[in-house]
Amino acid sequence: MDTSAEPEPVRYGDIVLIYIDERRRYIVRVEEGRVFGSDKGILRLDELVGRPYGSRVKLSTGVEALVLRPLLDDLLSLAYRRRSQVIYPKDLGFIIYIADIAPGKRVLEAGIGSGFLASAVASRLRPGGRLYSYEIRKDMAEIARRNLELAGLLDVVEIKVADVRSGVEEKSLDACLLDMPDPWNALNTAYNALKPSARLVVFVPTVNQVEKTVVALRRHGGFTDIHAVELLLREYQVKEGSVRPSTRMIGHTGYIVYARRV
Amino acid sequence: MDTSAEPEPVRYGDIVLIYIDERRRYIVRVEEGRVFGSDKGILRLDELVGRPYGSRVKLSTGVEALVLRPLLDDLLSLAYRRRSQVIYPKDLGFIIYIADIAPGKRVLEAGIGSGFLASAVASRLRPGGRLYSYEIRKDMAEIARRNLELAGLLDVVEIKVADVRSGVEEKSLDACLLDMPDPWNALNTAYNALKPSARLVVFVPTVNQVEKTVVALRRHGGFTDIHAVELLLREYQVKEGSVRPSTRMIGHTGYIVYARRV
Amino acid sequence: MDTSAEPEPVRYGDIVLIYIDERRRYIVRVEEGRVFGSDKGILRLDELVGRPYGSRVKLSTGVEALVLRPLLDDLLSLAYRRRSQVIYPKDLGFIIYIADIAPGKRVLEAGIGSGFLASAVASRLRPGGRLYSYEIRKDMAEIARRNLELAGLLDVVEIKVADVRSGVEEKSLDACLLDMPDPWNALNTAYNALKPSARLVVFVPTVNQVEKTVVALRRHGGFTDIHAVELLLREYQVKEGSVRPSTRMIGHTGYIVYARRV
Amino acid sequence: MDTSAEPEPVRYGDIVLIYIDERRRYIVRVEEGRVFGSDKGILRLDELVGRPYGSRVKLSTGVEALVLRPLLDDLLSLAYRRRSQVIYPKDLGFIIYIADIAPGKRVLEAGIGSGFLASAVASRLRPGGRLYSYEIRKDMAEIARRNLELAGLLDVVEIKVADVRSGVEEKSLDACLLDMPDPWNALNTAYNALKPSARLVVFVPTVNQVEKTVVALRRHGGFTDIHAVELLLREYQVKEGSVRPSTRMIGHTGYIVYARRV
Repeated sequence: MDTSAEPEPVRYGDIVLIYIDERRRYIVRVEEGRVFGSDKGILRLDELVGRPYGSRVKLSTGVEALVLRPLLDDLLSLAYRRRSQVIYPKDLGFIIYIADIAPGKRVLEAGIGSGFLASAVASRLRPGGRLYSYEIRKDMAEIARRNLELAGLLDVVEIKVADVRSGVEEKSLDACLLDMPDPWNALNTAYNALKPSARLVVFVPTVNQVEKTVVALRRHGGFTDIHAVELLLREYQVKEGSVRPSTRMIGHTGYIVYARRV
Repeated sequence: MDTSAEPEPVRYGDIVLIYIDERRRYIVRVEEGRVFGSDKGILRLDELVGRPYGSRVKLSTGVEALVLRPLLDDLLSLAYRRRSQVIYPKDLGFIIYIADIAPGKRVLEAGIGSGFLASAVASRLRPGGRLYSYEIRKDMAEIARRNLELAGLLDVVEIKVADVRSGVEEKSLDACLLDMPDPWNALNTAYNALKPSARLVVFVPTVNQVEKTVVALRRHGGFTDIHAVELLLREYQVKEGSVRPSTRMIGHTGYIVYARRV
Repeated sequence: MDTSAEPEPVRYGDIVLIYIDERRRYIVRVEEGRVFGSDKGILRLDELVGRPYGSRVKLSTGVEALVLRPLLDDLLSLAYRRRSQVIYPKDLGFIIYIADIAPGKRVLEAGIGSGFLASAVASRLRPGGRLYSYEIRKDMAEIARRNLELAGLLDVVEIKVADVRSGVEEKSLDACLLDMPDPWNALNTAYNALKPSARLVVFVPTVNQVEKTVVALRRHGGFTDIHAVELLLREYQVKEGSVRPSTRMIGHTGYIVYARRV
Repeated sequence: MDTSAEPEPVRYGDIVLIYIDERRRYIVRVEEGRVFGSDKGILRLDELVGRPYGSRVKLSTGVEALVLRPLLDDLLSLAYRRRSQVIYPKDLGFIIYIADIAPGKRVLEAGIGSGFLASAVASRLRPGGRLYSYEIRKDMAEIARRNLELAGLLDVVEIKVADVRSGVEEKSLDACLLDMPDPWNALNTAYNALKPSARLVVFVPTVNQVEKTVVALRRHGGFTDIHAVELLLREYQVKEGSVRPSTRMIGHTGYIVYARRV
């Protein structure tokens, strides 16, 4: 973590964001001899080394680009492989907030999918915290591992290829996040793994899953303060004297059910 | 940070959540001889000491209550004093995500208001991180200080009664969060304080402020990747066989404008 | 229907809208000797007779009021009795449009409830058109009858206290509107009563009813072009330099399912 | 208007809807010797004549199609030429409702654009009613005329190529609908043309236009009961056991401002 006033220089091995314009943003690893190519021109990555982050560089065509340090959100939206439906920023943010994800917390997740939620959580757990991610599909676990490695988060996450519905070893956890088709079958697992007062957060795409989850939570008896919500994000087109929401919009991603263990 | 499997006991001095039902949730500090009162009965707080969190206790009337360890969200919604318009969870979560708030980061905020955003951010910065919160109103700064103290977050936050529009001393920060009436007058401050690639996030209640902020960001030249969004949260009423959104809804809180420094 | 250029005068027997301010709007019938009273003063209604609609009059206190000819929407929102959940303007408008309600059309409705939808439809069917409204509850039918009488629409509507699920006599209708708990039990009725190509429109409050209705429509085989939608209405607070959506919003009224008979 | 129980037969000259599936819906005029072609096969239109509406016919490939009588909404969505931004059903319905469009009413509109709003209104004014549509662009007026002719609505509409901002001859109208870039410049026209109590309804795409319109309405003094709203339409994907909103959504069409003349 750099907290000094001096801009950091790019080094070999760094993951950088090459920003040409809003539609042309690329994540690349700076390696010796490597050449970055786009429809706007190419760039020898050796040229970047030693320059401070935030520098403007010229592509072979004279077009300018910015060399930026990627945020986690850049990695997720530009570089992560997606083999499953992923969770969007509006939902990631709400889950992080409502599950009280913070440094030092120990968190259970199932399934890991492509690792988007795992990354958003894991990056906020250091030091001392830990994410236990269960995934029944080995291939998905592998995709997630590669994505987390790219973001440098593998040390915080323990990926287990196992069925969360059969129970987990971890105890006294601070939060449990379920992104799976039948979360109602994992409520005992969640109950046994969570501390009292800790939040269980469930992400599901259909109303039917919301219904089954909430009904099962009430029947279980080990949870209270049960809520089901959805978030809609609206983007605006802003020109001076002409502000309006964008015509196209993502109308639905999923619902978030949350409750706390008693 | 407790990470053991044993439930922790309540101790004198603890801030606890007494949960009677969804509408009766109270935050109290456990002090010797103190009595908690509600319309459902009273409780001598001494009785709680030594009991594990998650215990059920009986009020004087026989009504049961749960003794829970409060999450930050509980403190914000139940115990924080509000002297200004506060930021809601849906917006807090998105801001935390999009500003890449994480352990070790150094963040600028103005103004602190009642300290809701400050708390959501500060709780995710330890260890090593720091929040520099500027506030022009001394009385607001005082409210925020009391709220942050309640949440045990004062060590992470440096509250400064000063005008962020006149510039700040901090340099090379990881994020800048503006919740003030005229954020367009603080763009130079933000530009000078932020690292390249770091996010500026602005929260404003009116469309006119969105317009002025976005136009000013474009004119400034030091920011790119400019977005203006709003989030709508819809809560659902779930009964078996009868799922529907709640009739009443918060129709608007504010807009979020975000950009990155180049 | 008055289409002349001269403002019409108020006559005895007229239903008028007395408009004091946005929160003080009253529907009253002008009768000899009657006195209208409000917290802003009283008004002898005899004084209105002969004055043109649109006149300003003074209450006993000197406060001004406008005497306006009510629109149907005024009657619905200010004067209609409500004994059941009513349908809101956003939904009424969409139903009228999608069901192709127009002069001369013959329409089936069940149930009539408080008569809000019946009124919005009936007022657009003259001359030659007709609304057949089935209602199983006699008391509801009576409420609706009184409301329709107030709006002068009784001649267009035939209210039948009967169960639409048992079938109807009418044939070759132009539209069928179902606002009842179990519309899936009325699909045969609708199919037999409708012309080919005519629209069936269903209004239901829960997602579960949407699911059952759509599934039943597909299974029935006599309907195509099946859609399920919901409408959200957002009101704005507009001041110069400060435009924002209202903080409070109706988050849900109901879902509209529509299809066409083949 | 056919109100008999017998299904009507298709005749030469009829405008019919050939419905193959949800994505293949075509409006064609039945003319002697004409052949309808699609990627699913062809159909000699002579074969339709004499068959009742609602019949199933076979294309050359054996694929079945339905022959339906088009609703106005079918014409608008499938057959109308669009040279301007058009108004969507959700907004058309609300405008019809709030402007109290009904048989016999006399209505002012500007501009006519492609004639979508004009059609939705005109089809509900017969008999006796009339729509006066002002349009400054001759080419747009011509497009609208062709569209209205297709729908058989030309007799109800008087299209005038003129600038509504300069005033209109019509007096004592029942409603005024403005779909133009600067409605605030037509408020005097609306005021002079409308009856007291009648509604002015404005459709504009940007928040800035909402602001200017509302501010101008308040300053004018001749209008009261001023509202600014927007409607969002959400479509649902319904499968048994799996109900969810559609992923893609139209995020914005326009805002509706309405007020009443005093």
